[in-house]
Amino acid sequence: MDWLKFFRGEPKSTAAIAKDRLKVVVAHQRDGRANGPVYLPRLREELLLVVRKYVQVPDDAVNVQVQREDGLEVLEMNITLPDAPTEGAA
Amino acid sequence: MDWLKFFRGEPKSTAAIAKDRLKVVVAHQRDGRANGPVYLPRLREELLLVVRKYVQVPDDAVNVQVQREDGLEVLEMNITLPDAPTEGAA
Repeated sequence: MDWLKFFRGEPKSTAAIAKDRLKVVVAHQRDGRANGPVYLPRLREELLLVVRKYVQVPDDAVNVQVQREDGLEVLEMNITLPDAPTEGAA
Repeated sequence: MDWLKFFRGEPKSTAAIAKDRLKVVVAHQRDGRANGPVYLPRLREELLLVVRKYVQVPDDAVNVQVQREDGLEVLEMNITLPDAPTEGAA
């Protein structure tokens, strides 16, 4: 799976504004079972909590979407990161 | 982003074997900074720990890959789920 090419293909929201973005995707592909594992909702919730613990942003900087289709359920979390000190900063 | 179509397009490993799969992707897109947030490595590590806490599988059922390219870093975790009781099971 060439994720680099995949994410690269996304249009930037505004070319003039330089912002870091973080995307977390949790995809569950069923193949023969009626439902997913019982822990899946809790697992996804805890993943979101971990992200929110590290990435302290206002709610409107976070977009969470769930897509469902026969056999496939995808949770996607998109976060616009705040300007903050980085490892590369002086 | 049509994730459903995206994941659907993936070839199944073996059509005869019905297995659930879980995919967790953490993608960081830089746009103007030298490096990502300082917490990114810890965040990714903690996300992996959460997944491993819920999904108790042998190490060989988990595949973790990191792809890097200018401005984009993608961590991908693929897990073949064990046969286990589900919400839909009797």
